[in-house]
Amino acid sequence: MGAAPTEHELFEEDTLDPQDWGELRALSHRIVDDAIDYVSGVRDRRVWQEMPEEVRASFATALPLAPTPTEDVYREVATNILGYPMGNIHPRFWSWYMGSSNFTGALGDFLAAIQGSNLGGGNHAAALVDQQVVDWCKQMLGFPASASGTLVSGGSVANIIGLAVARNAKAGVDVRELGVAAIEQPLRYYGSDQMHSCHRKGVETLGLGNQALRRIPTDAELRIDVDALRRAIREDRAAGFKPACVIATAGTVNTGAIDDLQALASVAAAEDLWLHVDGCIGALIAIAPENRYRVAGIEKANSVALDPHKWLHAPFEAGCVLVQDAGAHRGTFAVTPEYLVATARGLASAPWLYDYGLQTTRGFRALKIWMAVKEHGIGKFGRLVDQNIAQGRYLSDLIEVEPSLELVAPTNINIVCFRYRCEGKHADELKALNTEIMLRLQDEGTAVLSDTTVHGEHCLRVAINNHRTKRRDLKLLVEEVVRLGREIVRTDTAA
Amino acid sequence: MGAAPTEHELFEEDTLDPQDWGELRALSHRIVDDAIDYVSGVRDRRVWQEMPEEVRASFATALPLAPTPTEDVYREVATNILGYPMGNIHPRFWSWYMGSSNFTGALGDFLAAIQGSNLGGGNHAAALVDQQVVDWCKQMLGFPASASGTLVSGGSVANIIGLAVARNAKAGVDVRELGVAAIEQPLRYYGSDQMHSCHRKGVETLGLGNQALRRIPTDAELRIDVDALRRAIREDRAAGFKPACVIATAGTVNTGAIDDLQALASVAAAEDLWLHVDGCIGALIAIAPENRYRVAGIEKANSVALDPHKWLHAPFEAGCVLVQDAGAHRGTFAVTPEYLVATARGLASAPWLYDYGLQTTRGFRALKIWMAVKEHGIGKFGRLVDQNIAQGRYLSDLIEVEPSLELVAPTNINIVCFRYRCEGKHADELKALNTEIMLRLQDEGTAVLSDTTVHGEHCLRVAINNHRTKRRDLKLLVEEVVRLGREIVRTDTAA
Ligand SMILES: Cc1ncc(COP(=O)(O)O)c(C=O)c1O
Ligand SMILES: Cc1ncc(COP(=O)(O)O)c(C=O)c1O
Repeated sequence: MGAAPTEHELFEEDTLDPQDWGELRALSHRIVDDAIDYVSGVRDRRVWQEMPEEVRASFATALPLAPTPTEDVYREVATNILGYPMGNIHPRFWSWYMGSSNFTGALGDFLAAIQGSNLGGGNHAAALVDQQVVDWCKQMLGFPASASGTLVSGGSVANIIGLAVARNAKAGVDVRELGVAAIEQPLRYYGSDQMHSCHRKGVETLGLGNQALRRIPTDAELRIDVDALRRAIREDRAAGFKPACVIATAGTVNTGAIDDLQALASVAAAEDLWLHVDGCIGALIAIAPENRYRVAGIEKANSVALDPHKWLHAPFEAGCVLVQDAGAHRGTFAVTPEYLVATARGLASAPWLYDYGLQTTRGFRALKIWMAVKEHGIGKFGRLVDQNIAQGRYLSDLIEVEPSLELVAPTNINIVCFRYRCEGKHADELKALNTEIMLRLQDEGTAVLSDTTVHGEHCLRVAINNHRTKRRDLKLLVEEVVRLGREIVRTDTAA
Repeated sequence: MGAAPTEHELFEEDTLDPQDWGELRALSHRIVDDAIDYVSGVRDRRVWQEMPEEVRASFATALPLAPTPTEDVYREVATNILGYPMGNIHPRFWSWYMGSSNFTGALGDFLAAIQGSNLGGGNHAAALVDQQVVDWCKQMLGFPASASGTLVSGGSVANIIGLAVARNAKAGVDVRELGVAAIEQPLRYYGSDQMHSCHRKGVETLGLGNQALRRIPTDAELRIDVDALRRAIREDRAAGFKPACVIATAGTVNTGAIDDLQALASVAAAEDLWLHVDGCIGALIAIAPENRYRVAGIEKANSVALDPHKWLHAPFEAGCVLVQDAGAHRGTFAVTPEYLVATARGLASAPWLYDYGLQTTRGFRALKIWMAVKEHGIGKFGRLVDQNIAQGRYLSDLIEVEPSLELVAPTNINIVCFRYRCEGKHADELKALNTEIMLRLQDEGTAVLSDTTVHGEHCLRVAINNHRTKRRDLKLLVEEVVRLGREIVRTDTAA
């Protein structure tokens, strides 16, 4: 009955591309203008605000079956999403530990998605940019050109990769083939009691078990106690374990403490241990003229994790791991399936970049780093690291002269741990008071801090990894903490 | 001697933000225009081209110390980077297996970087969007709302997470605490001989060892031989191993074969094994009206890996893993460091999203998926999946009627394995000939395919995961392969 399909019916197919690029072009221009206003005006907005119920509800709708005009989709983004951010691009966001992004980096992410290349490998420009950024990371930290490295989703995966290479290098058996159960003397890893939780995740993921990761006590400066480490290694050898890896932290998340890298390098060398440095916070101090002495020795590590999405302020995600022994690195992860065999020329004639980590497909995260580093020069990033460290000092000085506040840990770099003090209050009353100060700062949109516990003492914590923070922001913080502390105490007493 | 610092000197600090946003605004508008031209004009360019030496050299320069005007940085991106892409956004890119990105997704990545939120968790809009996209993935695959899930860098990490939850669920000991060595009966995992190399990486990373992963032979359709699987399980039990996990592949990377999910679900249930489905290629067939029957049963899996950066064409990176038992999922990864304790209200009053995977910092990859799915509706994506599968059929039909070509494997979905035939040539001559055809297609910028080996036979492989491909592109491919094949044979013979 039906007529034969026409040439048109046979060959016209659908696509995600718009029929008319004009509308999308106009909308994109509006998005760019809004984005510039959003970033340039960030200081005038609240750092954070609670979402109203109707905004929350808008994110609980079911999978959309039918289309929505792109304009309307963007309107929802602008109103409901851009309006209620975490807050970390704001000059007074100092919570947890993260960078504050940058506009050029956002353009980089846009262009990476436009070009669309897959960094699993291949002979194309993005792959060379990826490797160039890795080379720059080596140069920043004083690693030799012969070292290997790979860009990853962040510090946690960078650390897991370092710990995995250490495992395979120290196992004494073909652990790739036989697994951890074949290791004759169970491996032991060592880090300080201040090390980041991702290392626990790491050893657990790697099948070594949390018990394989010993937490070594720290000194008054929150650095690993090197003598205690030596003792732990001796004990473990005596008990039949194989001490395999020291995890040094260059910049702990709690207080910014930097383990004695030179001493740890000596211990590792003497005891034949792998030295992995978790430099997610502090490795990039190596580019800061006034402070780089703090991480001297980092270039001796067997592997280092660093985080361009922290002190290079790359938009998320951008982590990096460097490994001195490129063969050990590749030897831990390389798999070469048949359909990925390299050819003599053409797209497949380059080394596979996925042979250095857990991913196969890899995004072009290098571009945002590459563009911002070219734009500013690494000198500027180094000065901004120095600036944040000077700001940590500045805030600590303000706290020390303010009678109602006290430092709870020594300020080493850009992390300040302090609390509002109040004569005669118990520890948990003090914790409740300081927590309430922190929450009111958020409620009022003034500043976002976190709280933590340092050697058993609860405190507020200001981590200044932020290129927009000015000293006047920190001055305001001190004034507001004092004001809120008084206010809460007064109301409590009145009640 | 020096005067006291002025108020200005004391409080003026540097930042990555420009002093004058006007120039950056103008440049951003130019970038948007260029990007629209780049994407809308992609069909008129070569799929891939070799980089000239001077372009390569430009990516070998040392870490830049001094700044470069942003305009100049962009000029380098436009010329040297955008000019030499992998090619996967082009309608005639059919190599390996990856999506082709989309413009709205690129805007999503831009806006994610502008807003800058960290998806490690927290009470803010991006976190709700992240969870909404996970919920949508559950809806697409028929998983219950009570299941858990997390967006990750891609299918490889999604698979590793699934395999890790399986390990911990089946270990019979507290493997997080004690490690793999404490497991009494060594675990065994099973997948077909066609399974993706990331599973090997997975079991090796998890400390189980490659030997723990048994490759089960496949039938003529390249699907796992279910009887052989049952036999392997029996053998392993008899030998003292603990069969723990079946990895079913819904869409193999070589030929697109889909294991019999219903049969595997029965085996897993009967034998008390974890069923993990690697649905990186095929899980999203569940949204395609004409083909969804092919993946019936996927909703019975204990865990599934799927890849929005494949058939949803999200710009890299976007993978997802779903787990039926949310408790088992969180129980594998949760760590709660002191400084991340949740508060009663405010930014920290929400569940931590990093408790479901390897990362701590997580980017806002959800946004690009969310925007494109809202824009087009999932119905459109489903039709595009059907379209690619129909194109696979179309290409296979063309090959079957062309005497100089032959299919090397049955075409199941959107992956076509074929070769140029030539009477009287040995296997390696045939391989050299077909490889040369593949490389000339690249050299001339016509099309990018890959080659592979299927049950011992070398062939060319066309994977049509591309919303820009039209049937006329496939017609052209066949014509060009035939032409090049003749040309090469003629020259060879003449020589
Ligand atoms: C010392 C340290 N290591 C590792 C990490 C994890 O890094 P990421 O969040 O990039 O995964 C962090 C995060 O703050 C950190 O501070
Ligand atoms: C079947 C299969 N599983 C897993 C993967 C890995 O996915 P990704 O590249 O997103 O890591 C792929 C990639 O093509 C695949 O085809």
